[in-house]
Amino acid sequence: MQTPEDAFLSDWSIHSRFGAVEDTGGVDRQAASEPDGEQRKWFAQLLESHGFEVQHDAIGNQFGLLELVPGAPYVLTGSHMDSQPTAGRFDGAYGVMASAHACFRVAEELRADPSRARYNLAVVNWFNEEGSRFKPSMMGSSVFTGKLALTEALATVDCGGVSVAGALDAIGERGDFSGLDVASYAEIHVQQGRSMEEEGVTIGLVGATWAAHKFEFRVTGEQAHSGATLMADRRDALLGAARLVVAARELVDRFEPGMLHTACGELNVYPNSPVVVASEVQLLLDLRSPSAEVIREAHTSLMDTIERMRHEDRVEVEVIAEHSWDQNPYPEAGVELAREIAEDLGLTHARVLTVAGHDSTNMKDEVPTVMLFVPSVDGVSHNLAEFTRDEDLLAGLAHLTGVVRCLAAGALVQTDE
Amino acid sequence: MQTPEDAFLSDWSIHSRFGAVEDTGGVDRQAASEPDGEQRKWFAQLLESHGFEVQHDAIGNQFGLLELVPGAPYVLTGSHMDSQPTAGRFDGAYGVMASAHACFRVAEELRADPSRARYNLAVVNWFNEEGSRFKPSMMGSSVFTGKLALTEALATVDCGGVSVAGALDAIGERGDFSGLDVASYAEIHVQQGRSMEEEGVTIGLVGATWAAHKFEFRVTGEQAHSGATLMADRRDALLGAARLVVAARELVDRFEPGMLHTACGELNVYPNSPVVVASEVQLLLDLRSPSAEVIREAHTSLMDTIERMRHEDRVEVEVIAEHSWDQNPYPEAGVELAREIAEDLGLTHARVLTVAGHDSTNMKDEVPTVMLFVPSVDGVSHNLAEFTRDEDLLAGLAHLTGVVRCLAAGALVQTDE
Repeated sequence: MQTPEDAFLSDWSIHSRFGAVEDTGGVDRQAASEPDGEQRKWFAQLLESHGFEVQHDAIGNQFGLLELVPGAPYVLTGSHMDSQPTAGRFDGAYGVMASAHACFRVAEELRADPSRARYNLAVVNWFNEEGSRFKPSMMGSSVFTGKLALTEALATVDCGGVSVAGALDAIGERGDFSGLDVASYAEIHVQQGRSMEEEGVTIGLVGATWAAHKFEFRVTGEQAHSGATLMADRRDALLGAARLVVAARELVDRFEPGMLHTACGELNVYPNSPVVVASEVQLLLDLRSPSAEVIREAHTSLMDTIERMRHEDRVEVEVIAEHSWDQNPYPEAGVELAREIAEDLGLTHARVLTVAGHDSTNMKDEVPTVMLFVPSVDGVSHNLAEFTRDEDLLAGLAHLTGVVRCLAAGALVQTDE
Repeated sequence: MQTPEDAFLSDWSIHSRFGAVEDTGGVDRQAASEPDGEQRKWFAQLLESHGFEVQHDAIGNQFGLLELVPGAPYVLTGSHMDSQPTAGRFDGAYGVMASAHACFRVAEELRADPSRARYNLAVVNWFNEEGSRFKPSMMGSSVFTGKLALTEALATVDCGGVSVAGALDAIGERGDFSGLDVASYAEIHVQQGRSMEEEGVTIGLVGATWAAHKFEFRVTGEQAHSGATLMADRRDALLGAARLVVAARELVDRFEPGMLHTACGELNVYPNSPVVVASEVQLLLDLRSPSAEVIREAHTSLMDTIERMRHEDRVEVEVIAEHSWDQNPYPEAGVELAREIAEDLGLTHARVLTVAGHDSTNMKDEVPTVMLFVPSVDGVSHNLAEFTRDEDLLAGLAHLTGVVRCLAAGALVQTDE
C-alpha cells in the first residue's frame, strides 16, 4: 500500500507539470493564466477524491471543505499555486499541496475517531499571491480578510488590459461562496533565503515579518530628440530613474551586511523609443530591514539623493504611492505550538523572520495563525532553479500535519466555554 | 486670389489636425496608425487635386507623380508624415508638405512653359521614418534604396505583435508600384537643435551627418526574490543597466561641451515584476559626435565601465547589435546649389551638420541630393511643444521651390549627352 509520504510525492510530481518550463525544474503559471486554470481543475478533482467539497469565492480563492462537526468553524490551511513568470515550482505550491495532504491525513484520523474533532477542515488555494500579472500581491487573501475591496480587485487589469474578473471567468474560477467561519489558519512555505540551510534547521518557526518601506516613484523629464538635443537642454527621466536604482543599491553598503535589502524590480519608460529622451519613468523601489530604524535612516538618505537629482538632472521625482510597516509579529502562541510539535517529531527548528509577505500576513490579523518554513537550497527564489529536497518537503508535511491535528482539536482558539 | 504662401499655410493647418494631441500643438501619429492612414488619404486627395497621380510601393511609401516629359526620370522630393509618440507637428511633416507645394508651384510653371522641363516631378511620403512603432527607423527609404530587404521589413512586428504588412493592410496603404527612375532628391526638415536660431540663420545647408556609434545591449543577471535574497547573492540585470545609463551620461563631461551626445531612450526589463530581481534588460544606447575620434575614446571608456560591472555586479553585458559610422558627408554639389539659391533669394544661410538621420541619408548614396533645414524654436524636437515660425516655414518653402525648379531643369545631374 502507498504510504502517505509516497502519496504526497506522487501528487507533487503531477502538480509540478502545470505550467512547467521545458528543460528546467521551474514553472510559469501566473494568476488566472491557462496553466493556473488547468491546475485548479486538477486540484479540485484531487480534493473531491478525498471527500472534500470544492467551492470558489468571488475573487477566485479555491477552497476544499470537509465538514466533520456540523456547523462548527473551520481550521483553514493553504497557500497559493500562482507563480511569478519563469519561477520555481515550490513557492506557494508546496504550501497548498502540503496543506491538502495534511488535511487528508487528519481527516482520516478524525473519521476513525470523530470524538477528537472540534473543528472542520478546509484547504485553500489563494488567488494571485504573486501580484506579477495583477497588482497588488496577496490579492485573494486581502479580499478575504476585507483589506481590499472586491470590486477594486475585480476591476484591476493586466498589461494587456484584461481584468481580474475577465481572467477568472476565462478559466471558470469565479464563484459565489462566502461566509466561511475560520477558527485558525496554518501555512507552510519554502524559505526565501538561506539561513536555515546554513544552520542545519529543518523547520522554521516564523516569528515576524521584516520592516519595509515600498515606494512607487514617478520621475518626470521632458521629451526631446535623443541625438540632436544639447545635453545641457535635456531633462532625462530615464537618467533620473537610473540614478535612483544605483542609489538604492549603494545605500546597502552603509549598513551592516544583512541589515538592509533594497530593490527595483519593475521599471517602465515612456515613450520608450530609441531616439526620444524619456519624459516619464515609473518604478517600484523597496527598502527592507529587520530594523525599522535602519529603514528610517535609509529613507532619509534616499530622499537626499532625490533632492540632489532634482537640481542636477532637472527632473521631477514624485512618490505616487508608498506603504511602510514596522517589524510585524506573528502570534506568539502559534510559534510556541509549532515549536512543541517540532520537538515531539524530533525535527530541528529555529525561530526565523520572513522578509517576504505571505497570505498568512493577512490571516494572522484575523485568527490564530501558524507560519512555517522548510529550507530552500542556496535560498534561491523566484527563479526556475528554486529547489527543496524531498526529505525537507516530507518533514514539513509531517510538521504541518501535526499542526492541523492540534488546530482541529481546538489548539490556539480561546472560547468562552 | 489665394497666394501660394496662403495655400501652403492653409493646407498645413489642416494637415496638423491628423493625430493632434488635444490642448497641445503636437501630434501622436506613429507609422501605419489610424491617424497616419487618415492623413495619407487626405494627402492623396490633395495631390490628385493638383493633377498628381498617387501610387504606393510594397513598403507603403506614398508617391505623387506628375509626368511632364514622357519617359524621363523624376525629381523626387519629400520626407515623412509619421511621428514619434506625442511629438511635434513639424518633424517630417513640414518636409512632405513643403515638397508638395514646391512641386505644385514648379508644375504650374512648367505647364506654362514645357520647354524648361527636363525631368518629371514626384513627391514622396516615406513610410516609418521614426522607427518608434516598427524598427529600424528610415524603413521606407531603406527598402526603396535596397539597404533593407522588403520581406524583412514587412515581417517586423510592433510590441503588440502586429506586423508592418498587417498594419499597412489595415490602413490600405500597401501597393505594388515599383521602378521609379529618380534623377535627384531634395528634402527639407526643421533643425533638431538650436544653432541656426542662435546664429540668426534661416536656411541650413546640411553638409554632413555626425559620427555615431549605436549599441543594443543585453544585460543578463539572475531572477531572485527581490526582498528575501541576500544582497551579496544577487545578480541584478536592472542595476547593471542603470549603471550603463548613468555611465553614458557621465562620459559627456570628459569632452568639450557639444562634442559628445549620449542617450538611452529605450529600456525593457524582464520579468519586470515588483518582487523579482530582473534577469534580463535590453537597452539601446547611442554615442554621437561631430568627431569620430571622440566616439572612439568614448567607446573605449564605456567598455572599461562594462568590464568593471561584469566583476563588481556579476552581470553579463553583451552587445547584441551595433552600428557605427564616421562623419557622413552630403554631396558637395548639392550644398553649393542650395547656397546659390539662398543667395538669390536673399535668405541668410549657413553650412550645418545634422545629428539625426533623415531619409535623405539613404537617398544621397544613390542620387544627387540636397538637404535643407529651417530653424526650430529653442531646438525643441520629439516633443509636443516643437515649434517653427510661419515666416521660417515660408522661407524654407521658397528655397525648396527654387531647388526643385533647378533640379527639374537638370541641375546636379551629369549625363552623357
